Amino acid sequence: MKVRDYLQIEPVEDVPGVLRRVAIGAEDGAPRFAMRVFEVSPGSSTPFHSHWWEHEVFVLSGEGLVKSQEGEKSIAEGTVVYIAPDEEHCFTNSGNDVLRFICVIPLENKV
Amino acid sequence: MKVRDYLQIEPVEDVPGVLRRVAIGAEDGAPRFAMRVFEVSPGSSTPFHSHWWEHEVFVLSGEGLVKSQEGEKSIAEGTVVYIAPDEEHCFTNSGNDVLRFICVIPLENKV
Repeated sequence: MKVRDYLQIEPVEDVPGVLRRVAIGAEDGAPRFAMRVFEVSPGSSTPFHSHWWEHEVFVLSGEGLVKSQEGEKSIAEGTVVYIAPDEEHCFTNSGNDVLRFICVIPLENKV
Repeated sequence: MKVRDYLQIEPVEDVPGVLRRVAIGAEDGAPRFAMRVFEVSPGSSTPFHSHWWEHEVFVLSGEGLVKSQEGEKSIAEGTVVYIAPDEEHCFTNSGNDVLRFICVIPLENKV
């Protein structure tokens, strides 16, 4: 087994205002899916985009909005979000604190 | 997309003192893996067992121990745990509050 605090993991800033940590991934020996932790700063957003892989999201803290072609919904601590493969989506921090969420994806994708 | 608070989901008590909620699973259309949220009451433990599927775990709150054949490690909010396929393991609540964690598994397994 591998056990560590996710804050020990070096974050990557792919998009301004959005930090991503790979909490569990291929380097840990995980065979099928990867768990990432995102931190979105107030006013920032992930890009509105789509891809072949799904997202399984759990919001840890903060307040925000998740948007798809169906519309927009509020998210906060304890919200779970399922984004289907090829569904357009983005996550926006609409609050004053960092928006933190877990996002699990299949490992065929680059993490 | 599907958006809801995980507390809206009816929990199942497979083991005394251990509640399991399927936050995202096959019923939501998820094709590959399922996200569950566990609540272990103080003094309770999941069984020490192994199975062909891996676990990717993120601790939400509480204090506990994760045990494998390698030994025992402390877990708390923000701890991530990777349990490899066929690795024996259990999670024990060693604190005074509920131990809550996310556990993602491949969907070939029954959730």
